[in-house]
Amino acid sequence: MTKKTYDAVVLGAGPAGEVAAGRLADGGWKVAIVERDLIGGECSYYACMPSKALLRPAGVLAEAKRIPGVPVADDAALDPAAVLARRDVVIHDQDDSGQLPWLEERGIDLYRGAGHFVGAGRIAVGEDELSAARAVIVATGSGAAMPPIAGLDSVRTWNNRDATTAKKVPASMVVLGGGPVGSELSQAWASLGTKVTLVDPGDHLLGREEPFAGEEVAAALSGRFGVDVRLGTEVESVRAGGAGVVAELRDGGAVEGEELLVAVGRKPHTEDIGLEAIGVEADEHGFLTVDDRMRVGGRDDLFAIGDVNGRALFTHIGKYQAWIVAENLLGREVVALAEGIGSPRVTFTDPQVASAGKTLAEAEAAGIDAHAVEVPTDGAAGASFHGKGTGGRSRLVIDRATDTIVGATFTGFETADFLQAATVAIVAAVPLARLRHVIAPYPTRSEVWLKLLEKWEAGDRG
Amino acid sequence: MTKKTYDAVVLGAGPAGEVAAGRLADGGWKVAIVERDLIGGECSYYACMPSKALLRPAGVLAEAKRIPGVPVADDAALDPAAVLARRDVVIHDQDDSGQLPWLEERGIDLYRGAGHFVGAGRIAVGEDELSAARAVIVATGSGAAMPPIAGLDSVRTWNNRDATTAKKVPASMVVLGGGPVGSELSQAWASLGTKVTLVDPGDHLLGREEPFAGEEVAAALSGRFGVDVRLGTEVESVRAGGAGVVAELRDGGAVEGEELLVAVGRKPHTEDIGLEAIGVEADEHGFLTVDDRMRVGGRDDLFAIGDVNGRALFTHIGKYQAWIVAENLLGREVVALAEGIGSPRVTFTDPQVASAGKTLAEAEAAGIDAHAVEVPTDGAAGASFHGKGTGGRSRLVIDRATDTIVGATFTGFETADFLQAATVAIVAAVPLARLRHVIAPYPTRSEVWLKLLEKWEAGDRG
Repeated sequence: MTKKTYDAVVLGAGPAGEVAAGRLADGGWKVAIVERDLIGGECSYYACMPSKALLRPAGVLAEAKRIPGVPVADDAALDPAAVLARRDVVIHDQDDSGQLPWLEERGIDLYRGAGHFVGAGRIAVGEDELSAARAVIVATGSGAAMPPIAGLDSVRTWNNRDATTAKKVPASMVVLGGGPVGSELSQAWASLGTKVTLVDPGDHLLGREEPFAGEEVAAALSGRFGVDVRLGTEVESVRAGGAGVVAELRDGGAVEGEELLVAVGRKPHTEDIGLEAIGVEADEHGFLTVDDRMRVGGRDDLFAIGDVNGRALFTHIGKYQAWIVAENLLGREVVALAEGIGSPRVTFTDPQVASAGKTLAEAEAAGIDAHAVEVPTDGAAGASFHGKGTGGRSRLVIDRATDTIVGATFTGFETADFLQAATVAIVAAVPLARLRHVIAPYPTRSEVWLKLLEKWEAGDRG
Repeated sequence: MTKKTYDAVVLGAGPAGEVAAGRLADGGWKVAIVERDLIGGECSYYACMPSKALLRPAGVLAEAKRIPGVPVADDAALDPAAVLARRDVVIHDQDDSGQLPWLEERGIDLYRGAGHFVGAGRIAVGEDELSAARAVIVATGSGAAMPPIAGLDSVRTWNNRDATTAKKVPASMVVLGGGPVGSELSQAWASLGTKVTLVDPGDHLLGREEPFAGEEVAAALSGRFGVDVRLGTEVESVRAGGAGVVAELRDGGAVEGEELLVAVGRKPHTEDIGLEAIGVEADEHGFLTVDDRMRVGGRDDLFAIGDVNGRALFTHIGKYQAWIVAENLLGREVVALAEGIGSPRVTFTDPQVASAGKTLAEAEAAGIDAHAVEVPTDGAAGASFHGKGTGGRSRLVIDRATDTIVGATFTGFETADFLQAATVAIVAAVPLARLRHVIAPYPTRSEVWLKLLEKWEAGDRG
């Protein structure tokens, strides 16, 4: 057993852990980072990055087909092998050696293995024991949750890792869960030729978003991508058979696929990290509860950031939380703000769903005198240059008491980068009367803002 | 002579005039609008809209080529006839009848012809004389300026109208002026096969933008589009000859082209509108000087909006000014704000140049303790999904005294819709410390904001 002392030990080298380790090292701290899998984390190799690499080609091809003069036939199809090869480049063939120089430059010591607490501020990794003089930061992330469905452990299933890294295009697939992961991967594989059946118990896909968002994604999946979307029903049991796996539905029918992708939520990695050794308990879902400085149990030497604290399971939120922790540890007081106001988020389907803050229903539930203003996303002149019929809706949720925006949703073709303006307006609580002076250049798609504010002026201004 | 009385008479039915007329009519006013050319104005038929229709296909094709798996050959070229046909659809074949229902629905009377003042509040159009009981709004716009170059009136020249509506692709073209119009149209025609020579007296293209912006556009024009970019020289004289027109340069050389596009600035339409009948004089450049409510000479019954007042010659600014005038006339006091802070603007070349507020040089000249923070536009993970090497730079100009953004420039592939977030931050004077809580979703290109703010934190924070 080799013992070594650091200022901070970071458990988990995903995006949140890396940012925390890097900022503390940049601030002069001696830092160790512990990772049992790949440096870069779930997001880089098994989630955000490969899924976008699989999704983007279909979006580009669709746009090319919409624009007269671009030499693409109406029936042109993607080359799946080339798309998968590009995906492999994006995820560096799951080789994380490219990440090592970044750690080395900062003098961060990397320990490969499953770390676990053996006492307050003490982490064991294999033969090593690391002591943290100032702080331990838990950033162990999450993995795919497995629902209690009869027979699920008797068949081969895919989780997000399998579905983002598969080397061949399955002929058919059943997808359980119509959240962002299930919706994105249904579209990605359908665009490469897989016959997809998507099953979700909700009334609409993307249950946490404005209802129209999920309805538009379902319409696109069913229509352009040929996905069989089954809403309002659940899988009761699964068994081997048919094309590979057969799933019996609660409403009596059955669906089958060569693969079965389970995308019903995430489970934090807290079970095997020795929490009992430090007298900390995770909540009923396994998350580590933290305050607005990401402190666990109010301690100044124990933090949890990223998926593992359950506040908002997004890479960008984890990186933000890492910044909060590092700033405070380095003596610059700062308290998390953005999550309380509402995490921005994007589902990268086509149509994309980009949203921040509260949905109308959430705002009403929070007791806000909320009002929604809505216009077509493709109504501005600038949208025409991306082709006809890109569709989508843009909604602002307005707090009438303050005349500020508390939520925004933009659906349609490539709306991800529309969101930042709304997030600025929400986080800075910019009054609508001031936003009316923020001019969108003509002819850009950003004129959707002008349309939204004109709508507000015409009928809804206080 | 038929006499008729209105609450307001709007001279010019371009975007600014249309918005003013429409808002006043919606507010219950009886409105006349006078137009000697097409309803919808220069922008719809001869400027913003057709130029973007000509530019966009090359951008889409380039992106399709960058994304593996999209079935486009590396040497695939645009179909110029299809691009020109789509351009004609966008400009409605220069038929403005589609605009008439919008006027009719609002009860706005249209007078076709060249209107001119015959007295205070009195406009003659052909056989009609219109009296404005409350206000006349001058929105006559601008046309291409012609520089005093020897021989220019002896040869056939193109202005923006000819260059945006041409029915065939010229074999070669000389472009005078490397501002937004000259740069955009050089690229558009080069992408369709024209051999273009672009001449500008400045050190770099886009003289009003950050120097790096013009340098990047010049590099793209010379490199990918094969344009012969001649900087730091002027055309001394032109004559018929060679491929069509020969231009002798000050530095001794000569360039020639089948067509000669003159894109050296704009001239307001104020010469023949009878200003003398109301005792108003335009400034030395022909513009009508206005205050922050767009009042001419401080009068409450005479306004000038859009290009004709010379404040900022952009369609979106004209529409904003129209809103200012209508709000005040309808009893809701509002003063123009955004132009003083800095007009947002986009040059739709590839790379695009999107900017708002002040350049670094402008901020310094204004006595601001200005500091520029800069990062690559394609440095965020989200950029990789648009292909390798999209390049570009993103710069924030920061006022150190207030730690707010006073200017922003984003160059690169499709940056137009990045701008809105910066414009919100500038117009609402959001402190950088607050902007640091505005999270950009991963993996979107908007993470350029995270990179900018990290750069500021790392080295430049007060």
